[in-house]
Amino acid sequence: MDFQAIQQASQRLKDNRAFELFVVGVIIFSALIIGAKTYHIPEEIRMFVAYLDMGVTFIFLLEIIIRFIAEPNKKDFFKSGWNIFDTVVVVVSLIPVDESDMALVGRLIRIFRVLRMVSIIPELRTLLNSLVRALPQLGYVVLLMFIIFYIYAAIGSTFFSTINPDLWGDITISMLTLFRVMTFEDWTDVMYETMAVHPLSWFYYLTFIFLTAFAFLNMVIGIVVNVLEDEHARERKEQEEAEGKVQLEGVMEELQRLRKMVEEKQ
Amino acid sequence: MDFQAIQQASQRLKDNRAFELFVVGVIIFSALIIGAKTYHIPEEIRMFVAYLDMGVTFIFLLEIIIRFIAEPNKKDFFKSGWNIFDTVVVVVSLIPVDESDMALVGRLIRIFRVLRMVSIIPELRTLLNSLVRALPQLGYVVLLMFIIFYIYAAIGSTFFSTINPDLWGDITISMLTLFRVMTFEDWTDVMYETMAVHPLSWFYYLTFIFLTAFAFLNMVIGIVVNVLEDEHARERKEQEEAEGKVQLEGVMEELQRLRKMVEEKQ
Amino acid sequence: MDFQAIQQASQRLKDNRAFELFVVGVIIFSALIIGAKTYHIPEEIRMFVAYLDMGVTFIFLLEIIIRFIAEPNKKDFFKSGWNIFDTVVVVVSLIPVDESDMALVGRLIRIFRVLRMVSIIPELRTLLNSLVRALPQLGYVVLLMFIIFYIYAAIGSTFFSTINPDLWGDITISMLTLFRVMTFEDWTDVMYETMAVHPLSWFYYLTFIFLTAFAFLNMVIGIVVNVLEDEHARERKEQEEAEGKVQLEGVMEELQRLRKMVEEKQ
Amino acid sequence: MDFQAIQQASQRLKDNRAFELFVVGVIIFSALIIGAKTYHIPEEIRMFVAYLDMGVTFIFLLEIIIRFIAEPNKKDFFKSGWNIFDTVVVVVSLIPVDESDMALVGRLIRIFRVLRMVSIIPELRTLLNSLVRALPQLGYVVLLMFIIFYIYAAIGSTFFSTINPDLWGDITISMLTLFRVMTFEDWTDVMYETMAVHPLSWFYYLTFIFLTAFAFLNMVIGIVVNVLEDEHARERKEQEEAEGKVQLEGVMEELQRLRKMVEEKQ
Repeated sequence: MDFQAIQQASQRLKDNRAFELFVVGVIIFSALIIGAKTYHIPEEIRMFVAYLDMGVTFIFLLEIIIRFIAEPNKKDFFKSGWNIFDTVVVVVSLIPVDESDMALVGRLIRIFRVLRMVSIIPELRTLLNSLVRALPQLGYVVLLMFIIFYIYAAIGSTFFSTINPDLWGDITISMLTLFRVMTFEDWTDVMYETMAVHPLSWFYYLTFIFLTAFAFLNMVIGIVVNVLEDEHARERKEQEEAEGKVQLEGVMEELQRLRKMVEEKQ
Repeated sequence: MDFQAIQQASQRLKDNRAFELFVVGVIIFSALIIGAKTYHIPEEIRMFVAYLDMGVTFIFLLEIIIRFIAEPNKKDFFKSGWNIFDTVVVVVSLIPVDESDMALVGRLIRIFRVLRMVSIIPELRTLLNSLVRALPQLGYVVLLMFIIFYIYAAIGSTFFSTINPDLWGDITISMLTLFRVMTFEDWTDVMYETMAVHPLSWFYYLTFIFLTAFAFLNMVIGIVVNVLEDEHARERKEQEEAEGKVQLEGVMEELQRLRKMVEEKQ
Repeated sequence: MDFQAIQQASQRLKDNRAFELFVVGVIIFSALIIGAKTYHIPEEIRMFVAYLDMGVTFIFLLEIIIRFIAEPNKKDFFKSGWNIFDTVVVVVSLIPVDESDMALVGRLIRIFRVLRMVSIIPELRTLLNSLVRALPQLGYVVLLMFIIFYIYAAIGSTFFSTINPDLWGDITISMLTLFRVMTFEDWTDVMYETMAVHPLSWFYYLTFIFLTAFAFLNMVIGIVVNVLEDEHARERKEQEEAEGKVQLEGVMEELQRLRKMVEEKQ
Repeated sequence: MDFQAIQQASQRLKDNRAFELFVVGVIIFSALIIGAKTYHIPEEIRMFVAYLDMGVTFIFLLEIIIRFIAEPNKKDFFKSGWNIFDTVVVVVSLIPVDESDMALVGRLIRIFRVLRMVSIIPELRTLLNSLVRALPQLGYVVLLMFIIFYIYAAIGSTFFSTINPDLWGDITISMLTLFRVMTFEDWTDVMYETMAVHPLSWFYYLTFIFLTAFAFLNMVIGIVVNVLEDEHARERKEQEEAEGKVQLEGVMEELQRLRKMVEEKQ
């Protein structure tokens, strides 16, 4: 049996709907194991769960290998970010970890195996890609928002750090506090505390809330308008293609040809 | 009087506007009884309320029977989900319950009688149907959101379960805590608690908030765009039908026929 | 000087821009008095403020009379809701009130004089009218929301009234508590309290939040789509009127007339 | 070397991409210094930071001078709000401040230097301009909202000032409390307190929340519709220009010319 045949057999297996469903099933099962581990379970079952975990890792390894063999051009395999992600997650799972600090990392890696759900279901992959593609549009609004945060955090830290160092100690903590104010989380408690010392500090909070709310609103509206425009452009293109047979230009040309004929006859 | 005549009489009664208004009135009255029961009322009035309740059940039973008789094809009656809902609610109301655990179930069923409002007012039924129809569009975003929740809950449970078991004890409780964080409900209290042990855990909360807020935003925008597209498509169809009399294609054909005539004359 | 002349003089005065600005000025001044009264002010100034208040009432009375005289058809004056509102507010202000319970009502009426701002500035009146006109569209969604609230309040009152009567005592209080949950205001405190007795009651809160959030979202989207549709329809109408000179129908008719001519020549 | 040459050399330098990047770098560095100052740093480093700060001020001064020289018409320089802002921030930074109250103002001015980021990056300037341009549209809604706040604050102050002077003492504090209620920040605590004295005061809070939420919603929708309309109009204009070559009017004229020719032939 030559390599070519193995590659084609792998590809057939990979493209098999039942195989995909089986892998999705294993991922769900692996997610359930991760969930089960967070409960207090008896020692004997814990052993059993560890064996199941090893089984899952083994199946994942097998699936990656099949997918790798199925690829006609081996170099293309690592051009896909999802393939690299899958490989790293599975390979790191293979490293044996004892009950040390590394065990925590091992557990974390196992948790990220749930993300394989996204890498294997095409619809989720498309959705995530469209989410990521929407990010660059936000670029400058996010930068503006960060500048607002930075300036307010610097002011807050300058004036309020002696009042409550836990909230305004340095610029990092101040930014976290401002994010809290932005989510309206007990923001009046923060305000009343500083108002006791600086009675006009409500102005600081209100302007901050209005600025960030306004910038946020514009960001949302910007995305909505962008999405609608894209949809609109796509639609108009379709419409134009559908109408492509007869255009006003065509009618005009036909008409001019007709006039020429009538003129020549005279 | 034969069955045919009874069926037609029932149908006339069922389609009668006054009859519909009367049933709506009884449902409102039944809702008021349910509300009244939550107040502390004297024993003698309680008895009276119980009789009223029986009266309401009786009227509902009568109305269902009339609607059933009015149906020309009896099998079609149970094809409508609302008819089944109505029948179940009324039949279960008939079961006599004494002051046991079943009494609570009986009260619950009586509360769900208020939902009959939706089953009897066509506009509400349409509204609910359109809400339900909007759900499948959300399918993959909800799945993605669930995966985000699951991964974060697993991480949270792994790192924070020893800090506060009430909030991070197992994966279910962690997901509830994360939903709380998502609604910004005292989320900083949850964060400050874990930051005392893991100072960098703010990164965990902030990424979670950004991810879910971003996914949620995209979901909302997705629905808005979908609704607008549907509306748009419907509108364009109407417009095309209205313009249907004269199309550019027709003008072109007329023009070509004319040219032929002029050519033939030459 | 006959009545006709007085009426026309009044109308000229009423339509005078300077007069309108003067009345707006008096309203703002009256609002400032209302604000000033909420501060602790010395007795002598309080007397002075009372005189100012009487002056404002007098000017308002005069303005209403002028507007009434200016009206050519006296019956039309009371057809406008704003005119009735203005008259009632001014007339009630005239009733002398001593330091009794009625004094509070008198103060309230004076506060509502600020609303005269809306009745006198046309742009605000238009804005409010457009807000009010948007309400009927919400009719059935509000009804559906009320049914959801009522059912959940009845369930909550049935199960939780013994746990915390302050929050779930009867159906009215339960609805207020549910509104609080809907605004995410310390909703976990409410939930954790009932979860201590009924561990599965998180299901009650989560379904409620999802249902109301979903209904609310649909309401918002519904308004957005409605407003956009109206704007769209208005725009298309304008476009059609602008293009009205030459229509495809006209081109076709011209073409058919031409063909007839050519045919007749043959 | 004459002035003309210096001006042109300055302009070349100003328009140089590397020069712009260098200035952006200095602004970022200056922002980092501002951030660093909020941390507890040893005295010797503090001295070093002060020297760096002076260096940054010097570079900014140089950059402003270059930009001023580069301007062909010196008067135009101060017509741009951003140039004035830059000059003021840099000049004020030059004033030596000792450890007095003025030191705080000096620090504040240094913080505002971060805003120079906006003045130097064209994309941020455009974004901010478009945000500011969206403001006037909100004019009347903001006025209406203010009237609602003012009336409710006056009512709240009248009825609740004796219950909790910290929240309802005078009309200013009441407006702050109402803003808190509008952000849902512990609003039920405020409500429960007044409900203990006036049991029906929930009506006050609920109507306030509904009114402001409704006005806010309409504001947001108004902006969305406005932005979409602008986008739409711009798009249609482009489309019309693209189609400009052949219009229905042109076809009609061509057709009428043809008919005339055929008529003349007869």
